[in-house]
Amino acid sequence: MPLTDLATLDARSFAGLREVMRLLEEHYRDLCDIEFTIERGRLWILQNRVGKRTPGAAFVIAAQLVDEGVIDLDEALRRVTGDQLAHLMFPAFGDAGGAVELTRGMNASPGAAVGRAVFSSAAAVEWAGRGEDVVLVRRETTPDDLAGMIAARGVLTSRGGRTSHAAVVARGMGRTCVCGAEELDVDLEARQVTAPGGVVVREGDVLSVDGTTGRVWLGAVPVETSAVVRYFEGELAPEDGDDVVQAVHRLIGHADARARLGVEANADTPADAARARRFGARGIGLCRTEHMFLGERRPLVEQLVLAEDDAGREAALAALAPLQRQDFTELFAAMDGLPVTIRLLDPPLHEFLPDLTELSVEVAVAEEQHHHDARGLRLLAAVRRMHEQNPMLGLRGVRLGLVVPGLYRMQVRAVAEAAAERIAAGGDPRPQVMVPLVATVTELELVRAEAERVVAEVAAERGVELRVPIGTMIEVPRAALTAGEIAGAAEFFSFGTNDLTQLTWGFSRDDVEAAFFPAYLQRGVFAVSPFESLDRTGVGALVELAAARGRAARPGLRTGVCGEHGGDPESIHFFARAGLDDVSCSPFRVPVARLEAGRAAVLAAG
Amino acid sequence: MPLTDLATLDARSFAGLREVMRLLEEHYRDLCDIEFTIERGRLWILQNRVGKRTPGAAFVIAAQLVDEGVIDLDEALRRVTGDQLAHLMFPAFGDAGGAVELTRGMNASPGAAVGRAVFSSAAAVEWAGRGEDVVLVRRETTPDDLAGMIAARGVLTSRGGRTSHAAVVARGMGRTCVCGAEELDVDLEARQVTAPGGVVVREGDVLSVDGTTGRVWLGAVPVETSAVVRYFEGELAPEDGDDVVQAVHRLIGHADARARLGVEANADTPADAARARRFGARGIGLCRTEHMFLGERRPLVEQLVLAEDDAGREAALAALAPLQRQDFTELFAAMDGLPVTIRLLDPPLHEFLPDLTELSVEVAVAEEQHHHDARGLRLLAAVRRMHEQNPMLGLRGVRLGLVVPGLYRMQVRAVAEAAAERIAAGGDPRPQVMVPLVATVTELELVRAEAERVVAEVAAERGVELRVPIGTMIEVPRAALTAGEIAGAAEFFSFGTNDLTQLTWGFSRDDVEAAFFPAYLQRGVFAVSPFESLDRTGVGALVELAAARGRAARPGLRTGVCGEHGGDPESIHFFARAGLDDVSCSPFRVPVARLEAGRAAVLAAG
Repeated sequence: MPLTDLATLDARSFAGLREVMRLLEEHYRDLCDIEFTIERGRLWILQNRVGKRTPGAAFVIAAQLVDEGVIDLDEALRRVTGDQLAHLMFPAFGDAGGAVELTRGMNASPGAAVGRAVFSSAAAVEWAGRGEDVVLVRRETTPDDLAGMIAARGVLTSRGGRTSHAAVVARGMGRTCVCGAEELDVDLEARQVTAPGGVVVREGDVLSVDGTTGRVWLGAVPVETSAVVRYFEGELAPEDGDDVVQAVHRLIGHADARARLGVEANADTPADAARARRFGARGIGLCRTEHMFLGERRPLVEQLVLAEDDAGREAALAALAPLQRQDFTELFAAMDGLPVTIRLLDPPLHEFLPDLTELSVEVAVAEEQHHHDARGLRLLAAVRRMHEQNPMLGLRGVRLGLVVPGLYRMQVRAVAEAAAERIAAGGDPRPQVMVPLVATVTELELVRAEAERVVAEVAAERGVELRVPIGTMIEVPRAALTAGEIAGAAEFFSFGTNDLTQLTWGFSRDDVEAAFFPAYLQRGVFAVSPFESLDRTGVGALVELAAARGRAARPGLRTGVCGEHGGDPESIHFFARAGLDDVSCSPFRVPVARLEAGRAAVLAAG
Repeated sequence: MPLTDLATLDARSFAGLREVMRLLEEHYRDLCDIEFTIERGRLWILQNRVGKRTPGAAFVIAAQLVDEGVIDLDEALRRVTGDQLAHLMFPAFGDAGGAVELTRGMNASPGAAVGRAVFSSAAAVEWAGRGEDVVLVRRETTPDDLAGMIAARGVLTSRGGRTSHAAVVARGMGRTCVCGAEELDVDLEARQVTAPGGVVVREGDVLSVDGTTGRVWLGAVPVETSAVVRYFEGELAPEDGDDVVQAVHRLIGHADARARLGVEANADTPADAARARRFGARGIGLCRTEHMFLGERRPLVEQLVLAEDDAGREAALAALAPLQRQDFTELFAAMDGLPVTIRLLDPPLHEFLPDLTELSVEVAVAEEQHHHDARGLRLLAAVRRMHEQNPMLGLRGVRLGLVVPGLYRMQVRAVAEAAAERIAAGGDPRPQVMVPLVATVTELELVRAEAERVVAEVAAERGVELRVPIGTMIEVPRAALTAGEIAGAAEFFSFGTNDLTQLTWGFSRDDVEAAFFPAYLQRGVFAVSPFESLDRTGVGALVELAAARGRAARPGLRTGVCGEHGGDPESIHFFARAGLDDVSCSPFRVPVARLEAGRAAVLAAG
């Protein structure tokens, strides 16, 4: 019944309703969604919510309300969220053209995936191995499907809700996922799925899966970069953009003006660093150096690991040094004038060697065939010797730095020489060195003493003034507990909340996300994965305690976060309340973090 | 020069010295070791220490001073230590007979080892595999020697001191070790060692190595059980023992009377439980249930793991149930009237399956030989599926209990039924159920609800009254941090300080003791391994915090320790100061813990 009919049927209730609507909309200063009933002539207001809107509409409405003088920019910031901005940045499907819409399921993990339908984890791995993009289709997934989910561009299931295995695991790994598409009849044996209207999709047919809306098409729908991303990339001037782009431009500018928490990026390559800078990062909060040991440099790392004496080790390090220096020179150029925080090598060295099981099988089969593989045997002996039961809890991070002679010295020298080169070329490099996995201040003091010596040597050799602050990750519970002592040797703290979450809970992300997180979400142990959003009660308590003790011991100590939580809205608000200085996140999340840093300041102001 | 000559040479200095000696010995009420010099007629006292004595002498002198009325029993307790008692309990070499004493090195890790000399880790593993006792002889050891050290009864090196790799690793694993026997010329190539006087020991010759004194013989010296152990075993009445046994008897009795910290034992079998009881344990603080899934029961566990549906899993659990019940019945009988704390299954299930690498090689080689091993392939698929990158941080403990249907229910039912059987037979069983690896109170609440239901069911079925307190391990940092919440669902706390140390520091004992602990000890990062003696600053802070929050939330909450630190003197004093109720340690360490618990009370009293 149109609302105007009520005016004639029951004028008194109608007047009452108009009054309530006015009151609510004045109170909320927003569009309201009101439920009411009239029983025997009496008006009952059943429920009121601020009206739902699409992410784009949220930005546009907020900006318009500012223009109309209804709200101010602070209030506008309160009305948009980082999640909405993230949605505006996902690639989206364009015009479906000739593709057939098959069904609509639950939008379990956003994104746009196009690929060939496969019906088993093994097939997903096999097809992806041939270079095909695939969409894994299952009734529901189990931990056994993990390899297939990793191999696939997207996941589609006919059963299960937002906390189903498929949904949780896909969100955790950033895979597009539509789940609970109940109209689909998935026949795993026949390797086909039947959609409403009798449309049959067979293995190898192309599917398009929209994790943002839940829609699924047979055929390839073109994927388009979002206008908001083109704006952040600098490819689209705000004035040339649509209302959404203009609203985003305006609100993120206000967020930057209000934010007390700085936003940096996790970036390992000059390309990532440049994008982070375009997206508004104020520096690199985490540059991992392990990727610099991969690819064509693997043989040098193998040489380093297999070295039987100091001379062999020194030779391998000497060969790696100029490559490392080049990496840093390019990074400092991309981030000229902004801080670049370089984390010394963290992963165990055996991660750069072949897998024990694969190599064992290879060598055993070769022997069975009477091939004598001397290099394989020598490598296998090294892999066996260095094999660890629990590599995450083994010889890594600062321990590696203290046990492998010359490794950290080589890295620090490469940083210092790269900075000296940039200075000579008229640049303004701002290197910082960060020591991983510190558990006790002595570890940090030992590395610091050597690093300071190397930096001073390079400064003297090159005749330049070098300032390289040395700080530490806080990612081991003991480091958080003894942060007061550690601050004595650290010029900054960076909370590695991924490792800190793993150690505080005692589980490794790789092993548990598929194995029991879905069950834990279903049974109410978690409301959300502690890897997605910071566990405030446990891990957060350690962050607060460490930040407070660190600052008490060293007033003005800079504190930041470089775990993935640095890009999560809820977590950003927590870090802002804890008084941290920076968060660092992946380049693509930088705008989201900027917006939320501004919102956190506005919300804290009340 | 005899001291009496001084009286004639310099009567004045002599008189002064006598006076100082009297003062010092009165002050220390103990035998003193005084260094002095006389320079131009003036007496200088350079140093004074309480005189050193053997462990046996320490007990005997303390008891005699009590008899002479010089000190009281409290003071006597202050003058002996748990380490001394531990030394008195080691097996010792008897009369060397025809064995030739070769040399004397550093007594790096106590004990008496007899075995055939081998000169490489590989040889140690090979000979031990044939059932031979071996002594591993090296110039010094490296992480590559770990397998050989595990296989050997004792380790002998010609180089390195008390913080050398050999010494640290041997102490950590409880292997007898003599290191730095520099008179020995070890020739690894020729596989022989030459001792002073030209005596040559070849591979296969029998050596006797005394880790307590540092002595090494060629030939087998008979090993004797210590009289103190025979006294604790009840084989030797105190009045039939020597002075040492009588002194130990007297002082440990006083320690028990004074102690506020109770001593329990970690025991998994009736035989261990019975020994623990003879050694004075007041209960079982930790009964691990994993050993109950090994040996002839492996096929049932394999069946449980490989089960493809609920029916298969239920059948495997039903077959395991009576065996578990029998285990508990025997344990309750051995500990009648004393608490027995049963920890529900902790290790990941894949630990009960074959090793991934070994099985992969086996299956690949079989295929190469054109044997089709269907069972092997099926098992391999399961092992691969369940393989974890970091099993210590994977699907284990309470997570396993919540994810594998029926597993904990079966275990709790076996506990309850065993208790009911003992009650029916007139016994007094005191079962307690302990949940491992809890990180959040919800996990504990879920297990608790099911366990309480099962206990009530069994009580109703058997018509007996059953009381089974349910508590939790505190071994994950998050559990310590949220102990206030967790206490709401726990009738007792038991600190698992091994896991708590691993997670608080972020390293696993298996992976790091050989890999970098020796370097850390040498570089001063640790003074002692945190697995040997509790790290008070980091791990200890979590223990104190959790105990305090737990007791605040639940007054009267019992708190104990069941990690290996429960048997370490320094750690016991810390736990006593933290106000814990019990420590639980290996049966053999129970007397040491009893003595130290008494000493802690006396020292606290000032």
